[in-house]
Amino acid sequence: MSADTARIVAVDTYDIRFPTSRELDGSDAMNPDPDYSAAYLILRTSAEGLEGHGFTFTIGRGNDVQVAAIEALREHVVGRSVAELCADPASLHRDLIGDSQLRWLGPEKGVMHMAIGAVVNAAWDLAAKREGKPLWQFLADADPQWLVSQVDFRYIADAISPERALELLRRGKDGAAQRTAELLRRGYPAYTTSPGWLGYSDEKLTRLARQAVADGFRQIKLKVGADLEDDVRRCRTARAAVGPDIRMAIDANQRWGVEQAVTWTTALAEFDPYWIEEPTSPDDVLGHAAIRRQVAPIRVATGEHVQNRIVFKQLLQAGAVDIVQIDAARVGGVNENLAILLLAAHYGVPVCPHAGGVGLCELVQHLSMFDYAALSGTTEDRVIEYVDHLHQHFLDPVVVDDGHYRAPTAPGFSAAMHGASIETYRYPDGDFWTADLAARRADEQQEVRA
Amino acid sequence: MSADTARIVAVDTYDIRFPTSRELDGSDAMNPDPDYSAAYLILRTSAEGLEGHGFTFTIGRGNDVQVAAIEALREHVVGRSVAELCADPASLHRDLIGDSQLRWLGPEKGVMHMAIGAVVNAAWDLAAKREGKPLWQFLADADPQWLVSQVDFRYIADAISPERALELLRRGKDGAAQRTAELLRRGYPAYTTSPGWLGYSDEKLTRLARQAVADGFRQIKLKVGADLEDDVRRCRTARAAVGPDIRMAIDANQRWGVEQAVTWTTALAEFDPYWIEEPTSPDDVLGHAAIRRQVAPIRVATGEHVQNRIVFKQLLQAGAVDIVQIDAARVGGVNENLAILLLAAHYGVPVCPHAGGVGLCELVQHLSMFDYAALSGTTEDRVIEYVDHLHQHFLDPVVVDDGHYRAPTAPGFSAAMHGASIETYRYPDGDFWTADLAARRADEQQEVRA
Repeated sequence: MSADTARIVAVDTYDIRFPTSRELDGSDAMNPDPDYSAAYLILRTSAEGLEGHGFTFTIGRGNDVQVAAIEALREHVVGRSVAELCADPASLHRDLIGDSQLRWLGPEKGVMHMAIGAVVNAAWDLAAKREGKPLWQFLADADPQWLVSQVDFRYIADAISPERALELLRRGKDGAAQRTAELLRRGYPAYTTSPGWLGYSDEKLTRLARQAVADGFRQIKLKVGADLEDDVRRCRTARAAVGPDIRMAIDANQRWGVEQAVTWTTALAEFDPYWIEEPTSPDDVLGHAAIRRQVAPIRVATGEHVQNRIVFKQLLQAGAVDIVQIDAARVGGVNENLAILLLAAHYGVPVCPHAGGVGLCELVQHLSMFDYAALSGTTEDRVIEYVDHLHQHFLDPVVVDDGHYRAPTAPGFSAAMHGASIETYRYPDGDFWTADLAARRADEQQEVRA
Repeated sequence: MSADTARIVAVDTYDIRFPTSRELDGSDAMNPDPDYSAAYLILRTSAEGLEGHGFTFTIGRGNDVQVAAIEALREHVVGRSVAELCADPASLHRDLIGDSQLRWLGPEKGVMHMAIGAVVNAAWDLAAKREGKPLWQFLADADPQWLVSQVDFRYIADAISPERALELLRRGKDGAAQRTAELLRRGYPAYTTSPGWLGYSDEKLTRLARQAVADGFRQIKLKVGADLEDDVRRCRTARAAVGPDIRMAIDANQRWGVEQAVTWTTALAEFDPYWIEEPTSPDDVLGHAAIRRQVAPIRVATGEHVQNRIVFKQLLQAGAVDIVQIDAARVGGVNENLAILLLAAHYGVPVCPHAGGVGLCELVQHLSMFDYAALSGTTEDRVIEYVDHLHQHFLDPVVVDDGHYRAPTAPGFSAAMHGASIETYRYPDGDFWTADLAARRADEQQEVRA
């Protein structure tokens, strides 16, 4: 069957969980024991060798609920023409967002919205692969008018009109070829969170922070918010390890209310934190605005849990954030992230994506690289988070070199996992979990006998 | 087993769907064809005859995802002491909200949060039944200090402190006995949405609007937002039917952006709408504030899709709403609705609950009656929505009489459905859906033969 008559023939789903809680990797003030997981899907097509991959990142329990939500979207996807879907991914995005019965379960937030994001991202993976380009390049090469047609302006048109979006994207074309060459040569700046997990000892923190600088990173990040005395010691330790010229962000993972965020952040000001990330609930636009006024010049950053473009719009309207932290797998896919990148560009606020987890680095690098090549046109004060976890499970893993993400060149959205990883970490029936269950049963029996 | 040693032994779940889309009951500008559904659960205990019932209301597709989310909470519930749970439902609420892995799927919004609300509400049903009181009375009789202990002040303490909440609840005790007697005598004022569904003809609208007035309602509501010309005609028709003294609210079900909300509402101003409900996205606090400034003196109302106390807090902080519309089954159960009622009382904004759907009237009447008896102490400008749908499926259905909800006297939260209704409307294996599927298969075969 030729690609032109090809259809989506199946949406296969997988509940994949990695036992990361056993190493305290990824531990923070709100998430002490995450098992990094992915509710993963493959759009199968009738075209030889053409598939779209997508996923939602979760941290363990509830990954099955997320898979069920993706499965609830299946009837909207199967049977679609691959050519039509790739020519206009917004058609799928619109249908999924617009299903009024499913919309009731959000609207545009939480489990159902993340499921929509996973499916929409898989469609973009398919579209970029079909064009033979990495997604960032596919987007950077696209006609501005077409990109505008991919954005849902409902509920954000009071902040940015389609006309203004078009103007920004047209301006982004100036010098795009040169910036693309720069990306291919040098990559995109990264910062690393690897030294700063709460579960690590001071010795490990020092060692990893120094290593980060030696590896070419100009910014690190520390988790804070569990205990102020500990945080003072850890910030002092980290600042001593990296010296005064390296940016050091801190991240409270929503631990505080407004007042506590101000007090705690102020108490750490002497260590010159570059930004305070997620000081409070991601839903609290006015709270972030109040915190920002009181902790300046320390910057306020949030976004990894911001549910959709409507909340990002308000964070920008209210002057509540200095840094917009998009996440590739929280909102309604590439279409909604285009809206958020446009809003950030319109308000002149830098985007520093959230990454880490399972495959979030792989995905989000494409969005930042598109933004640099063909929208904001700058990497100034912009960095993509980098965490060195679980990349080995991906077919086209990120490469970070001298503190920069190297620009991916393989076609697609870098979302595909190795088949062997899927088979091993499928929950509960993959090889790892089957063996784990058997081992735990054996332990229990031994305890009973003892 | 005596009640004191009783435990929760099971959480049974049911996917219940009513085929309401076939009658256009419940049709509005965003939801043209809802199949009113409930993701329903029963907390089974080891105490003879003691059960807790709860549910999430959905409108069809995705009800299975909602059921899966409730099932993901099972391990937090089974094994708990009934006495301890009933003495402190906040202990369950805290554990469910605080499960960091499940929290990632929100936080505190969408499918997972509604599932938490359903389970928490079932615990309150259990607690009130165990005390032999209807929930509103159970809450109204409770010690103010204990009620404060049931509220999660995280993320709202900048707007209302526990001390202020205690002050409000203590003040609410003045005259509570008299107001309780008044509730038992007269009930709580209702308004009706039954005349105003978009799918109805003008003749049906007129007939039902007149009937509403004859039935003692002092307020009706019309769905708007699909077509302005139609809305002008329908508002004129309804106003002519009810006369100038009956309040007529209009409801756009999130159809508009900010600018369109202002234009459209203004175009209907000549018909003296009492409030415009859900003019735009429930996430858009600043958008509601902008709309309110521009459509005054028409009031702005929202809440049925407002995800949690944090967004309600901001709607009140920003002066974005004139009316707070709580929903009994959208947020994290009674505990979170206590927080929202306290916020509304603190800001002096009336609460007019959303109801209708499946069992929402049954639940939410308890919250308004508690608010009248022992918190705000008034029914002025306060009405509970009433829609005459599906009450026959409930063991203790609402009774609306002369435009008032009669105060329930049976113990519990009025959440329990008849076993026969559950068996008939279980999806897809209940009697109704089995017969429906067989009929559709027979039709298909006939079409194939013809």
